[in-house]
Amino acid sequence: ILLNGRPSINSDYFFTDTTGVSKDTECAIVLGGDGTIIQAAHDLLGKNIPILGINLGTLGFLAEIEVNNIYNALDCLFENKYNVENRMMIGGRIYSNNKEMYAGSSLNDIVVTRSGFSRIISVSVYVNGEYVDRYRGDGIIVSTPTGSTGYSLSSGGPVVKPISKVIIITPICPHSLYARSIVVSAEDQITIKIDKSKKTQDEEAIATFDGRQAILLHAEDVIDICKAEEETKLVKINNTSFFEILRTKIGQGGELV
Amino acid sequence: ILLNGRPSINSDYFFTDTTGVSKDTECAIVLGGDGTIIQAAHDLLGKNIPILGINLGTLGFLAEIEVNNIYNALDCLFENKYNVENRMMIGGRIYSNNKEMYAGSSLNDIVVTRSGFSRIISVSVYVNGEYVDRYRGDGIIVSTPTGSTGYSLSSGGPVVKPISKVIIITPICPHSLYARSIVVSAEDQITIKIDKSKKTQDEEAIATFDGRQAILLHAEDVIDICKAEEETKLVKINNTSFFEILRTKIGQGGELV
Amino acid sequence: ILLNGRPSINSDYFFTDTTGVSKDTECAIVLGGDGTIIQAAHDLLGKNIPILGINLGTLGFLAEIEVNNIYNALDCLFENKYNVENRMMIGGRIYSNNKEMYAGSSLNDIVVTRSGFSRIISVSVYVNGEYVDRYRGDGIIVSTPTGSTGYSLSSGGPVVKPISKVIIITPICPHSLYARSIVVSAEDQITIKIDKSKKTQDEEAIATFDGRQAILLHAEDVIDICKAEEETKLVKINNTSFFEILRTKIGQGGELV
Amino acid sequence: ILLNGRPSINSDYFFTDTTGVSKDTECAIVLGGDGTIIQAAHDLLGKNIPILGINLGTLGFLAEIEVNNIYNALDCLFENKYNVENRMMIGGRIYSNNKEMYAGSSLNDIVVTRSGFSRIISVSVYVNGEYVDRYRGDGIIVSTPTGSTGYSLSSGGPVVKPISKVIIITPICPHSLYARSIVVSAEDQITIKIDKSKKTQDEEAIATFDGRQAILLHAEDVIDICKAEEETKLVKINNTSFFEILRTKIGQGGELV
Repeated sequence: ILLNGRPSINSDYFFTDTTGVSKDTECAIVLGGDGTIIQAAHDLLGKNIPILGINLGTLGFLAEIEVNNIYNALDCLFENKYNVENRMMIGGRIYSNNKEMYAGSSLNDIVVTRSGFSRIISVSVYVNGEYVDRYRGDGIIVSTPTGSTGYSLSSGGPVVKPISKVIIITPICPHSLYARSIVVSAEDQITIKIDKSKKTQDEEAIATFDGRQAILLHAEDVIDICKAEEETKLVKINNTSFFEILRTKIGQGGELV
Repeated sequence: ILLNGRPSINSDYFFTDTTGVSKDTECAIVLGGDGTIIQAAHDLLGKNIPILGINLGTLGFLAEIEVNNIYNALDCLFENKYNVENRMMIGGRIYSNNKEMYAGSSLNDIVVTRSGFSRIISVSVYVNGEYVDRYRGDGIIVSTPTGSTGYSLSSGGPVVKPISKVIIITPICPHSLYARSIVVSAEDQITIKIDKSKKTQDEEAIATFDGRQAILLHAEDVIDICKAEEETKLVKINNTSFFEILRTKIGQGGELV
Repeated sequence: ILLNGRPSINSDYFFTDTTGVSKDTECAIVLGGDGTIIQAAHDLLGKNIPILGINLGTLGFLAEIEVNNIYNALDCLFENKYNVENRMMIGGRIYSNNKEMYAGSSLNDIVVTRSGFSRIISVSVYVNGEYVDRYRGDGIIVSTPTGSTGYSLSSGGPVVKPISKVIIITPICPHSLYARSIVVSAEDQITIKIDKSKKTQDEEAIATFDGRQAILLHAEDVIDICKAEEETKLVKINNTSFFEILRTKIGQGGELV
Repeated sequence: ILLNGRPSINSDYFFTDTTGVSKDTECAIVLGGDGTIIQAAHDLLGKNIPILGINLGTLGFLAEIEVNNIYNALDCLFENKYNVENRMMIGGRIYSNNKEMYAGSSLNDIVVTRSGFSRIISVSVYVNGEYVDRYRGDGIIVSTPTGSTGYSLSSGGPVVKPISKVIIITPICPHSLYARSIVVSAEDQITIKIDKSKKTQDEEAIATFDGRQAILLHAEDVIDICKAEEETKLVKINNTSFFEILRTKIGQGGELV
């Protein structure tokens, strides 16, 4: 185990310089909350470096080591007493007039949503090219199992055990009463098309990847989403089960995000 | 029954000039959908003129006369064969640093929501000064019975019969799993406070009245909402019941809004 | 304030003998939980005696005095420092072949549900004689505002402030995806008809009043439900607001019933 | 392709004699609805015979050939123009005092529910031996992807694409407001324990397998559920996608079951 000098990632959210992190780093220790770990996952994307999350605040789904257990955790790390859990990511490519305009990956979710001042957007969803349905409302969330306890859950989606091989599609405040979360296989490809309509004005929808980059979308833009090649590797030292974290967070007031 | 010259309201949504509509107009005939009627309700606010809605598209909750029944409807109107239904409105006053910044009324709802690029807002809700709860998420909807079949329903709220004397408070994609719609009496006063927090940046929340005016909100701004003095008077010619409209709209594909 | 000898109601759930409770009793002190108070409300029905609930376990919506505050509560009672809150009840009449078979009242709810071994029931719902819809599934709940935090909430219904003048109709696990809770006025009359169908066998539905009496229903039986003439009078000593109780119960693990 | 004489399964629900169906039958043609196919799946369990479903009523998720297309379907069958879709089943074993009392398989779901006259049951759920949570309410549903559009959906669960490798756990009318559907991997083992409590009387819970056999349960009985060794093989002739069937059934009035 080698940490390259100072903690390779610090809790200063937006200004981590990870360009100097070499690919043979054996572990990145991330101080912060789940948000910081997601940031680290993006910063270290493709470098294949396992991440150990130390939560500085409340227990997180990703940052499971509490700050007062840090020395014990480091001992386990040095003694190789840990597991590495591979978390699936999803990748999305945005096409405008058949030209790729953006490509990115997410550990949690890719969200298409109305921008603040527009009143409604309409999106059509396809799975492996098969038409699923048209959703009018605030937008749609495509989530990994890791992201299932985030925005997807707030919008009525199910809790999904982290290592299940599925992708979750959840409409946000849909006008169709019967719209529900749809769970598909991790191998499926999901396509979202921004419908052209009187009410979907140009530039009134945005796509966000893990709640970070926001890309302005136009009517008839298309987003293709599938399992990403990259994964996020999480160092697991405790045997804290996912369900125990879920119960604990609910006990802290039921706020999961 | 006298219509002052040409149809006092036409279907051109944003440019109706109602300044010349005199207060002794006996009935305003509105051509369009529910959205147009809401617009007319705002344009005619305080003039106490009953509105007859002719829907030009699909059956509406407010515009219940279909365009091919228009002559029959006019006959009923002239023969006094109609009822007037008073629909409750809610009024909201926005305070910034204890100074009233905006006041407006809604036939459907007053919505506080995150602006598109912010990720989350936190609002505290009070009923008659009593603290209800803090809601973190996409925002909150305060709705009349008329508005219960709109955005509130999309966000998980109940269907409320139009003439019930209640106000409905519905959180939008709340992070607390147990957050639910709350129904209070029409006489209750609801207060919404924008919480100051790291994640609620200044100018990242907006209030909309009936999906029309959008007012930018700052942390610690307060909105007081209660039953408005004004009502919207709807001319009812058919005996089409609310539940029949509800079933019909569901049969047309379940899109209620 | 006069308590007739020993506590007129004791916590022994099923064997309270209230026949000897005279109508001029000024207050009945009920030891137990919300269930015990509901039992007391039934035992004292029509006697118009205010009930003071002392909870022996966790905080209740109805039993708001904790056992270690009992002396203080009694002092308030003797010094007339209390309010009486009138809680609406609903009454139901069951008709079989147009003959009334049963009549009863509920403080919480009247529930029509499939019996355990049947798989599904179908009921048609009418409000003031107007057809609302047909619900296939596990059944339907008609609830008072007081009952809104009970079975109705578990089935997806809204939280309703106790003194609102409404009745809530909530389908239980409906097969129609768009079925939602419907809120109507306290003055409305609700009719539930057990549909005759292959899948609704005779004697496979039951009606329960406040989860107590269970009446076997047959296909084509009808239940008429409206606001009851009787009310339950609750003595309120604390100023604990309904919303504070709601938050506290959620803090105790989110189990509201 | 060989059909053993007359249609091996007929639409007469309960009296199909499948003992004479030899294992080398190449295809069983089932006339009826989804319920009949589920019955056939049970009758033919372990014989590994593909099932072709002809729906006699409305379009089904399993019975996708309409009766007027039957000759065309048979042609495809004889010309080998079809696919076989393997649908996952789940198996459950019920233990009472550590003795196995019952074992069975389900194509849709295994449901533990209160019997009609009991008011509430409490069950504890474990996944791979890890405690998930305790659910009080009407019971719990453990569903395959095939069963996700059945009772699980009515109880708030997600739609799951048929060939996803997951199992869905959905609480029925849970008293905990934050209880949600949980999606786990097909390889996970789920354990449900009937809790002993004042309110869970003996013999007041029942387990049903695909809505057919009902087994009476006692407090402290345990059900172990995991992916079954058997699968149900469905003959697919049309290219009707799952999502098309979903949309069609919703268009027929939104009743999915």
